[in-house]
Amino acid sequence: MPQLLSEHASFGGVQGLYRHDSATIGLPMQFAVYRPQGPPRATLYYLAGLTCSEETFAIKAGAQRVAAELGLMLVSPDTSPRGTGIAGADAEWDFGHGAGFYLDATAAPWARHFRMESYLVHELRTLVVDHFGADSSRLGLCGHSMGGHGALTLALRHPGLFGSVSAFAPMAAPASCPWGAKAFGLYLGADRGTWDAHDASALMRRARTPYPQGILVDQGLADKFLAEQLRPETFEAACDAAAQPLTLRRHAGYDHGYYFIASFIEDHLRFHAQCLAG
Amino acid sequence: MPQLLSEHASFGGVQGLYRHDSATIGLPMQFAVYRPQGPPRATLYYLAGLTCSEETFAIKAGAQRVAAELGLMLVSPDTSPRGTGIAGADAEWDFGHGAGFYLDATAAPWARHFRMESYLVHELRTLVVDHFGADSSRLGLCGHSMGGHGALTLALRHPGLFGSVSAFAPMAAPASCPWGAKAFGLYLGADRGTWDAHDASALMRRARTPYPQGILVDQGLADKFLAEQLRPETFEAACDAAAQPLTLRRHAGYDHGYYFIASFIEDHLRFHAQCLAG
Repeated sequence: MPQLLSEHASFGGVQGLYRHDSATIGLPMQFAVYRPQGPPRATLYYLAGLTCSEETFAIKAGAQRVAAELGLMLVSPDTSPRGTGIAGADAEWDFGHGAGFYLDATAAPWARHFRMESYLVHELRTLVVDHFGADSSRLGLCGHSMGGHGALTLALRHPGLFGSVSAFAPMAAPASCPWGAKAFGLYLGADRGTWDAHDASALMRRARTPYPQGILVDQGLADKFLAEQLRPETFEAACDAAAQPLTLRRHAGYDHGYYFIASFIEDHLRFHAQCLAG
Repeated sequence: MPQLLSEHASFGGVQGLYRHDSATIGLPMQFAVYRPQGPPRATLYYLAGLTCSEETFAIKAGAQRVAAELGLMLVSPDTSPRGTGIAGADAEWDFGHGAGFYLDATAAPWARHFRMESYLVHELRTLVVDHFGADSSRLGLCGHSMGGHGALTLALRHPGLFGSVSAFAPMAAPASCPWGAKAFGLYLGADRGTWDAHDASALMRRARTPYPQGILVDQGLADKFLAEQLRPETFEAACDAAAQPLTLRRHAGYDHGYYFIASFIEDHLRFHAQCLAG
């Protein structure tokens, strides 16, 4: 049973922060849930980016207003295990604590606790269904940057679990970008043959219209990470090859942060609500 | 000329953070400005509460969306001078740095730098008109908690400067509440006779319909500071005595934080836009 840490009335619903002992991670984990008034019509997971926590989205994105209107429950997990005690896990902002990359590490010493993929698609998903009344047939997945990578890869690696997927400025081809190559090398090991299974563009190239209702991606053109770290054009080409409908919107002037996300989150919530309504 | 520290595209406008050397304060001051697309139709000052900074409102309140729609420019100053070097100014969260109470201190050692009232109504107001294109005849004032006290008192102490005023959970009778009594005692001295000039309820009792278009106040009923520190009922009675129209909305379940503010900020922006449109 998750422990309630705090809750706040918000747009007629409740924004809560919870902690539970995760069997998958082997440590306590925190997550945030926004519950609209009444039983949720659908549930949207939001995966945050590097250095963020389970609270970032709730505080900065301004998503509760439209979630309340649409009856969407919003679930945001933390971005990694915390307090693992692994040497170096706090040393760098783009790896370790706060940078779990939403995969199950296979290389020592990370493999023991850094199991974010199993945690999200099994343990947390079950918990949200059992304790918060989520309908397991109406789950959507959204994320930002590292969390955009997470949203796209988990949606592609677990067909049938999620009914909709979208991303803000995702790391769309991480196996060939500095952030992803560093993380994959340490979490998965030096054998690059294992990396493509966690690269959204590589996964999409092997798929065939996995999300027939389309995928929505927003990208700011003033995003300083765009060219080197994100590469939406690689994902765009993969979607084209896979006959996957993709709406990739490029926004002049917008950067990588939450002012960008807040400006377009309404469109994502409406997109998910529509996909999940069927 | 203010120095631009950062800017972010937001809802078609720009959220900027600035620093300038304040002659009034005698130290550098920072402030945030949201500029909607095109020339602003009106400008709203937002004064934040204890422990907040000039960025808090921009990050947490979600005000930019409706400000963009209404053509409102949003200006949020810091909550006090910073780096004053005064012994004890960092020691307490409810006094000193981060707790300027939007007044000019008269008691040593605070009187030298803690001149937030003069800073706001003269220096920053002039700067926003000169450098950001604000129309000095269309300025509104809003604030939260200590900043709600600031909004109400500055609006009452400077008739004619502001065309509209509203507040979230204001310290509405600070001279008789612990936070206010502590701050007034140190900033203004032990003579309580000077305090009423900075107490919104006392000022209102001596006024006569100073804001004929009304004043909007939102208050959460799950606000843990309500009974001891805020006392909206005292301000309500003062408005009644002054024939001042007041819309005081009491919201069951809402607390003192930004989830509360975000839930109702849209109503405040529309209220100010309407008052300032005439």
